[in-house]
Amino acid sequence: MNSSSHSGLVTPPPEAAGGPRAADLFDRWALEALRRHAGQVPLRVRLANGPDLPPVSGPAVATVTINRRLTLLNLLRNPDVEFGEGFIAGDIEVEGDLVALLEAVYRAQEAAGALRPRHSSFSHSPKESRAQVQRHYDVGNDFYRLWLDSQLVYTCAYFPSPGTTLEAAQVAKMDLVCRKLRLRPGEHVIEAGCGWGALALHMAREYGVTVTAYNLSHEQIAYAQQRAAREGLRDRVAFIEDDYRAIHGSADAFVSVGMLEHVGPADYPVLAAVIRRVLGDGRGRGLLHFIGRSRPNPLHPWITKRIFPGAYPPTLVEAVGGVLEPANLTVLDVENLRLHYAETLDQWRRRFLAAAEDVRRVFGAPFERAWRLYLSGSQAAFMAGSLQLFQVVFAPASSNAIPWTRETADDDVMGGFGGGGPRSDDQL
Amino acid sequence: MNSSSHSGLVTPPPEAAGGPRAADLFDRWALEALRRHAGQVPLRVRLANGPDLPPVSGPAVATVTINRRLTLLNLLRNPDVEFGEGFIAGDIEVEGDLVALLEAVYRAQEAAGALRPRHSSFSHSPKESRAQVQRHYDVGNDFYRLWLDSQLVYTCAYFPSPGTTLEAAQVAKMDLVCRKLRLRPGEHVIEAGCGWGALALHMAREYGVTVTAYNLSHEQIAYAQQRAAREGLRDRVAFIEDDYRAIHGSADAFVSVGMLEHVGPADYPVLAAVIRRVLGDGRGRGLLHFIGRSRPNPLHPWITKRIFPGAYPPTLVEAVGGVLEPANLTVLDVENLRLHYAETLDQWRRRFLAAAEDVRRVFGAPFERAWRLYLSGSQAAFMAGSLQLFQVVFAPASSNAIPWTRETADDDVMGGFGGGGPRSDDQL
Repeated sequence: MNSSSHSGLVTPPPEAAGGPRAADLFDRWALEALRRHAGQVPLRVRLANGPDLPPVSGPAVATVTINRRLTLLNLLRNPDVEFGEGFIAGDIEVEGDLVALLEAVYRAQEAAGALRPRHSSFSHSPKESRAQVQRHYDVGNDFYRLWLDSQLVYTCAYFPSPGTTLEAAQVAKMDLVCRKLRLRPGEHVIEAGCGWGALALHMAREYGVTVTAYNLSHEQIAYAQQRAAREGLRDRVAFIEDDYRAIHGSADAFVSVGMLEHVGPADYPVLAAVIRRVLGDGRGRGLLHFIGRSRPNPLHPWITKRIFPGAYPPTLVEAVGGVLEPANLTVLDVENLRLHYAETLDQWRRRFLAAAEDVRRVFGAPFERAWRLYLSGSQAAFMAGSLQLFQVVFAPASSNAIPWTRETADDDVMGGFGGGGPRSDDQL
Repeated sequence: MNSSSHSGLVTPPPEAAGGPRAADLFDRWALEALRRHAGQVPLRVRLANGPDLPPVSGPAVATVTINRRLTLLNLLRNPDVEFGEGFIAGDIEVEGDLVALLEAVYRAQEAAGALRPRHSSFSHSPKESRAQVQRHYDVGNDFYRLWLDSQLVYTCAYFPSPGTTLEAAQVAKMDLVCRKLRLRPGEHVIEAGCGWGALALHMAREYGVTVTAYNLSHEQIAYAQQRAAREGLRDRVAFIEDDYRAIHGSADAFVSVGMLEHVGPADYPVLAAVIRRVLGDGRGRGLLHFIGRSRPNPLHPWITKRIFPGAYPPTLVEAVGGVLEPANLTVLDVENLRLHYAETLDQWRRRFLAAAEDVRRVFGAPFERAWRLYLSGSQAAFMAGSLQLFQVVFAPASSNAIPWTRETADDDVMGGFGGGGPRSDDQL
């Protein structure tokens, strides 16, 4: 709390003045405007040592306290960014359920059509990409170890049943990806954006493939290489600290989990050419796993500013139209795992909260608040449907080396019925 | 054979003339040009009573005989349309495997990029739609009974295993659609484009739902209504002879199997508005099943001319971007059943061939040849990947009444984990 620091642009009138005070009227108007921006959410909003507005109807989902009038003015100017800025500065405090509050706000905004439907066409140079990646992922492995699973998998998990733990759900996700790719021993896989290497190592260890895995984060690649050595997988998995644009050679399968969000739409043709080169015209297949949207919309501006500079979650149309169509790749299978990402984030957020004191001690309170807001807001966005999670399996459009059904056992099915589907043998 | 009718634009020189004949040189040039258009396909081409060109290399996949020089000239002018025209007139004959020949041609053309990548934006008035539908579907139920399955399902079947019969595969397809929609007893389903009513009746009989089903074909609706009466399902299934634009009321599920191909892209916003109105913002979900492309390309011009006037197979991008995004619907699941359509067409074509004599007797030889070419060419197009088959499941973007996983039993899952996915309950 910071209630004595009324140093905003609007100077409060002396406390002694009686009757209706101009500043108080202004504060009420500002708080109400702010609440209108949040949509029809039952919200209590108050200014410390100032007006206190109960929800318009029903019990409050949360109470938002604004500690400085300057923060209130900033919120009026740019609420989406300044809510986050005020929150990390400690000038905005939320009592109650932060996730439920944000979900209600996102739902109200989606329903009101308060979206900015336009898409982004920014392009990132390899140098920019490296800076953006390092900013987020090189915070330090010790930080992520506090709240990710034991294998440091920083993408949506897959929970086959409600009781699944986060550790098991990340393994289940890796198996889901491998099953969809129908990996067979001896095949070669190229992975773009491999994080701390868990999937590459899993594919090599459990499915007998060789993997070449790329990542721009120095800290993550160093960790992955150590782990490969420790597990005796150095001859089967090559970790390369480089950009997806540097990928060369061919492979039986291409996989990318959680990287497309960092590739600007303007660079999708470049990624398309890379995938096309990797898969050629043959029996190859690939999988893209990415955070997306149901309609074009930039990432939340505060997340862009503080957490993921340069990130853009594409719609399925933007991803398929931008990356697959130009490479004459066709979609074989799409699965939307949105609620699984909400569950993943719920588990990350709970672990993060349990470690919050350690985070504050090492990184400071603003950092801890920023990450708490980011995890809560992301969970809320997946709950509200502002964000979606797509897994897309694809192959060259004319390849008949594709699974016959989802259920068919792996060994039977590449190539459909007897290798290439039905074939006529009539004399017509 | 029609070898005495040399009545083309180019008058053949008298047979008596010796030495290299100008007409013969021209014929060779024309046959070679024609073969080049077909791509690198080992093909024997000959003009009746004229040149006979063996394949450039390897054994011939088929021999194409052109019986009239006029047909050869027409082929030079517009090969895609005039091959079909010559075939149905009996002026072009194919010895060997027609499906394999067409598949090889489509593959060669796809590989050579001999495509016309542009998309179509034509719009159909309800009257035009009715005329187009009646032309194809009102040929008569007796005709379709000759070669479709016993329930007259005229869309891609689903073959769980290689031994599945066509009859069983059509039932399996209907069950696949119903499982993907997670139908529950008492729900209401709206179907757009219901053919002879098999799916509507199956949903009502096997899943306990009520159905309102629309179709423009008078013959099909009459048949469906009789069948509903015979099966005692008239109080559960309403068949309505009308356009998708006339759909009104709301439903728990929207389904359309094999209709989107007949809706011009220019009318996708109209269909989007219809689906949005049917599903609202609630727990509804829908499924679109349609023939598509891996990249934008009009339907084969001869098929458009003779078989499906006004039809257009969209890419996944065109369908999702045109029909779902504007309605704020999100993709939950996509499955590509391309090889199942190749198998379905193989079975239809074999039944058709077995009944060819009956077809010729009733409808005439050109009609029989046209349908033989259409069924063969369609099978070839699915084999070559020129055509794809997409099943797309969707729901309002913010609905949490969606299946938790593909595997979860129906009753558990609408609403994810305990109705609406994970939910935070912390005081932050």
